[in-house]
Amino acid sequence: MVDQQSSKRATASLIIIGNEILSGRTQDANLNYIAHGLAEIGVIFAEARVVLDIEEDIIKAVNELRQKYDYVFTTGGIGPTHDDITSLSISKAFGVPLIEHPEAFKNLKEFYDNKGEELNSARRKMATTPEGATLIDNSISIAPGFKMDNVYVFAGIPKIMRVMFDAVKKDLRHSIPILSRTINTNEIEGDIAADLEVIQNQYQQVEIGSYPVKEDGIFKVSVVIRGDDDELLAEVEEKVKNILKK
Amino acid sequence: MVDQQSSKRATASLIIIGNEILSGRTQDANLNYIAHGLAEIGVIFAEARVVLDIEEDIIKAVNELRQKYDYVFTTGGIGPTHDDITSLSISKAFGVPLIEHPEAFKNLKEFYDNKGEELNSARRKMATTPEGATLIDNSISIAPGFKMDNVYVFAGIPKIMRVMFDAVKKDLRHSIPILSRTINTNEIEGDIAADLEVIQNQYQQVEIGSYPVKEDGIFKVSVVIRGDDDELLAEVEEKVKNILKK
Repeated sequence: MVDQQSSKRATASLIIIGNEILSGRTQDANLNYIAHGLAEIGVIFAEARVVLDIEEDIIKAVNELRQKYDYVFTTGGIGPTHDDITSLSISKAFGVPLIEHPEAFKNLKEFYDNKGEELNSARRKMATTPEGATLIDNSISIAPGFKMDNVYVFAGIPKIMRVMFDAVKKDLRHSIPILSRTINTNEIEGDIAADLEVIQNQYQQVEIGSYPVKEDGIFKVSVVIRGDDDELLAEVEEKVKNILKK
Repeated sequence: MVDQQSSKRATASLIIIGNEILSGRTQDANLNYIAHGLAEIGVIFAEARVVLDIEEDIIKAVNELRQKYDYVFTTGGIGPTHDDITSLSISKAFGVPLIEHPEAFKNLKEFYDNKGEELNSARRKMATTPEGATLIDNSISIAPGFKMDNVYVFAGIPKIMRVMFDAVKKDLRHSIPILSRTINTNEIEGDIAADLEVIQNQYQQVEIGSYPVKEDGIFKVSVVIRGDDDELLAEVEEKVKNILKK
């Protein structure tokens, strides 16, 4: 709670650009990776959006979120095909021209020359970025991501996205990691809710979440305590365990 | 493309309410189910958002999306614990009081009476809805979802969410299903991009997506053709197959 509103911590958001997610064809695998990475470096992951491959929708999401949060990440839509419209949309969001980035072109040229393959116009499209962007390395397939102000543009393919996210992670503003402790119980949520609330009210510096799951036809609950201070988390963990023993 | 802008089709959006998704603790499993369900009945799934359990954020997302799309679905935050703030947030979004819904109370009372368990105040909270809401049945654990105007509020637990979504699906405005055909190829995206674009430009009534994956260190591509008319999809499929044979 307090944790999420702390002025010390940087805030971040994610835009998943992908018809394939909203059509149900693909299950997104990038949000969860980014979530873990941000928690590690103490950045608050405040919002995510999934949008269609529609220029107007991408521009709107980018411009809204880059005002609102310290960082915006995007995944998807930077390949060589006609439906890859992320770079163009980002350049429009910033009101700058889409240019061929000399370094990206050089790297791609070298890569395809070495493979004995042609850098055709479709591939060459992957060297385009908004004017003023800096590249994000892609050690897997060379076609880079890029950073434009506080917006970080990543590939959608999870393996490549991870390489790109890991490459920029060190440059994000770090805080104490967001720590958590989890208590699993066979208690029913409705039986512990009142006591949990008392503890939450007593410890405003931590965030207590209660997550029911249904396993083998039985409801179980994970109580998750999150915050900055591990000693405090331990104290709250004890309190929670005590109400479970009742 | 044309498909997505068709005035005939209803549009829908999803708000995933969940600190546990943005903290990385849980991988969302609801979006994909809803995506498939909407495609079946021809509803365009236009946007999804993941927000924190923060009242203000939920209200903002609900009010933005309910203006913009025919349907808004929400998942999560309707349980008995202190962090379940969806019903309250929705009532504030609509500017109506949060009330105890008589039918929901009756059903919960009966359910817990039969189990010989107490309907304590935490559980009783699950009978509260914004004034004017109609209930969405939950055959699994009785605590209902609800519909408020064009906003459908579901549980976050996937098994329960599915029961609720399936219960309301029949009442949504149906259109011809959004059909798709997929062609998998070992071609490299950059080699087929130019030809694909020619086909896309020729067939504006279908949407051609190109989705690279990396499997066993090798890039492969799925070309997905989506649209209303299966005969047309078959025709485009042939065209795509022809460029792959080149």
